[in-house]
Amino acid sequence: MHSWIPIPANSDFSLRNLPYGVFSTDSLSQRIGTAIGPYVLDLKVMAQEGVFSSIAFDSTTLKSSTLNAYASLDKNVHKAIRQLLVQLLAKDTSLGSALRDNTERKRRVLIPLHDVKMHLPMSIGDYTDFCVVPYHLKNVCLDLTPVRMDLPLAYHGRASSVVVSGTPFRRPKGQVISNNIPTLSATQKLDFEVELAAFIGHGNEMGCLIDVNDAENSIFGIVLLNDWSARDIQFSESTPLGPFNGKNFCTSISPWIVTLDALAPFRTNPLSYSWWLQDNLLSYLDEKEPNSVYNIDIDVSLTGRSSQDSLTDPVLFNCSTRYISFSFAQMLAHHSVGGCPMRSGDLIATGTISGPTRRELGCLLEATKNGTEPYEAQEISPSDGCKLVRTFLEDGDLVEFRARADDGSGLGKVGFGICGGKVLPSI
Amino acid sequence: MHSWIPIPANSDFSLRNLPYGVFSTDSLSQRIGTAIGPYVLDLKVMAQEGVFSSIAFDSTTLKSSTLNAYASLDKNVHKAIRQLLVQLLAKDTSLGSALRDNTERKRRVLIPLHDVKMHLPMSIGDYTDFCVVPYHLKNVCLDLTPVRMDLPLAYHGRASSVVVSGTPFRRPKGQVISNNIPTLSATQKLDFEVELAAFIGHGNEMGCLIDVNDAENSIFGIVLLNDWSARDIQFSESTPLGPFNGKNFCTSISPWIVTLDALAPFRTNPLSYSWWLQDNLLSYLDEKEPNSVYNIDIDVSLTGRSSQDSLTDPVLFNCSTRYISFSFAQMLAHHSVGGCPMRSGDLIATGTISGPTRRELGCLLEATKNGTEPYEAQEISPSDGCKLVRTFLEDGDLVEFRARADDGSGLGKVGFGICGGKVLPSI
Repeated sequence: MHSWIPIPANSDFSLRNLPYGVFSTDSLSQRIGTAIGPYVLDLKVMAQEGVFSSIAFDSTTLKSSTLNAYASLDKNVHKAIRQLLVQLLAKDTSLGSALRDNTERKRRVLIPLHDVKMHLPMSIGDYTDFCVVPYHLKNVCLDLTPVRMDLPLAYHGRASSVVVSGTPFRRPKGQVISNNIPTLSATQKLDFEVELAAFIGHGNEMGCLIDVNDAENSIFGIVLLNDWSARDIQFSESTPLGPFNGKNFCTSISPWIVTLDALAPFRTNPLSYSWWLQDNLLSYLDEKEPNSVYNIDIDVSLTGRSSQDSLTDPVLFNCSTRYISFSFAQMLAHHSVGGCPMRSGDLIATGTISGPTRRELGCLLEATKNGTEPYEAQEISPSDGCKLVRTFLEDGDLVEFRARADDGSGLGKVGFGICGGKVLPSI
Repeated sequence: MHSWIPIPANSDFSLRNLPYGVFSTDSLSQRIGTAIGPYVLDLKVMAQEGVFSSIAFDSTTLKSSTLNAYASLDKNVHKAIRQLLVQLLAKDTSLGSALRDNTERKRRVLIPLHDVKMHLPMSIGDYTDFCVVPYHLKNVCLDLTPVRMDLPLAYHGRASSVVVSGTPFRRPKGQVISNNIPTLSATQKLDFEVELAAFIGHGNEMGCLIDVNDAENSIFGIVLLNDWSARDIQFSESTPLGPFNGKNFCTSISPWIVTLDALAPFRTNPLSYSWWLQDNLLSYLDEKEPNSVYNIDIDVSLTGRSSQDSLTDPVLFNCSTRYISFSFAQMLAHHSVGGCPMRSGDLIATGTISGPTRRELGCLLEATKNGTEPYEAQEISPSDGCKLVRTFLEDGDLVEFRARADDGSGLGKVGFGICGGKVLPSI
């Protein structure tokens, strides 16, 4: 499982990853590619040159400017393409003439990652945000109101404000209540939320439901998601209809869609929570295979603009997806149980991925107890007197999530790249 | 303002209406048209034949299979097209040779309404449901929890399950709580909600807001909307994130988009509610022109499948949009105040339009006090012993909204056509 392409040990894009994305360069229009080590492999040109002609599928889907059509194909097509890509890129490939030993083609299809601009990988029809991490629910909601924890709670989010990593956004204005008086002001409680999200590949017709044990066939792959939140606006508006302007100003995702095939070695059983009874799961949520969540570490870094913020490695949190209590399959089964149709490109997210300790939380709301206890980033490499302390986000802050699955097998990491965004001042 | 096309007095589609829709026939592919009396005028063919060549605009937008591109054009283009259509169709037209006296062209472009199949008029990116009718809020929410009434409350809805009038849907299954035990069952509390909804024509960039006094320029036009709701599912899931599966199984809209130009004669001032203080409106919601809502009557009829349901004219409710307290301009200003981007084809709805009397309510939840007091449809034309009584909807029920604005001026009605849907049994 090593490649003839030199892949640094710390690369997110080992040969066993092969995530899908949409990129462009100064000279190449928006197109589909896969990341391998320090390169993007141009799958449009590969398809145009007939490299996939041994596989029976509609190859125009790989020549599109989004992944929607390709993602909607049968899983077996995706598996066959993946297998062929691994063969083409493996050190001991028997297909050397198709790529490794074809200097001209390599020049055409292997583009340095640092030369490309990434785009939203799919046209997003609907975006749904779930709330399936019990620690987050416990920290945020349970004090306020009785909340059901025996089903994957969710709300519909805003698709039009989902942007690709690297897109800055303005601190939102909104209605904030102070001394019982609502005023319009820029949020003073700007926060992030660490989430994982699945892109739907193959959907369902309205009125039909997706069986929980078949639901993974509907999932094309997974990205990181930052559900930026304005807590003061959110709390002023959420009763009784849920979050709205407190959430819909921006949602960032990482550009590379990591497939479930790539994540298969990192499957794990959901944790059981002694304080949360999951025994009474209704049958439509009951999965035959219990190892339906993934073991992925997500680090949250914050780079501030002022000098006292300049830590060498300003890591705020180290999150883990093993705290997720409902799988994407369960989320899909719940979402469609009443007949709601899913379409290729729809996005479903986990909600904030918080763990039991303060270093494992997924948002500042929890870490600072709604701004009352400032939180300090850990200095991995301490430098003279520098520190970084926040209650909520400041203008100029750059927040980046980095995630990878790594089983220490030496076969390389399966990483997600960066999901980052910078806070611009309010207008 | 009379047309050379014979238009029955009770037609929704007088010469001062000219709504936009997307239709097809057995021989014509999906295309844009306007309704005039008993006909659809094929605007694609009109554009192809150069009838609009005197107007400077991108005429390919009228040759599309959805209205998104055309709706995103400047309002002045829409006004010029409307003006030209009125000239072409007016009895005393000076442009007779372009249509009235051109028998061949009339044969090509005037298609009987009963021969066409209507489609969703726009590709819907995001759908948002507001809650801007104080009587509905008062009847449904105020007993339960303190709710803010000084801003247009809203939640994000599901775009993928918005369907055009006439599309049947299955009674949804979902989690229902009985004796504190959740079970998966078909909803026993299936309801409708009478709403008006605006389609966005010209949107805003992320991070920019839409000024309330400029917001009508962003609205292409208005449709009827039925936000079908499963009350038992909705109430089992709505805390703290709002409605989800209780709403996302189906939302119906009427096929014809009525423009604000057509509705201009029916503008009126919002009612003032003595029990609801609107004095403290924040300035971003403060409209210069107070006459920003419309006087439109909406009738709700229900046709059941059993014989005792067979009333001659089974009208349940007579609703009126004059009870709306925030205009679409105010909804848009609120929706975008934090920078949320609107795109052409986005849909924003009013929430249930209920009035002060039982006959003016917009859903069965209110009329039957959550199913505890059966409600009887009024017999406009009484027949022997027939009656129609409901707590919630039964399988086979056909619910239809019909709406029109009519100032009695003799210039004809501005109607919306039908927004209807039939309940199929659960699978």
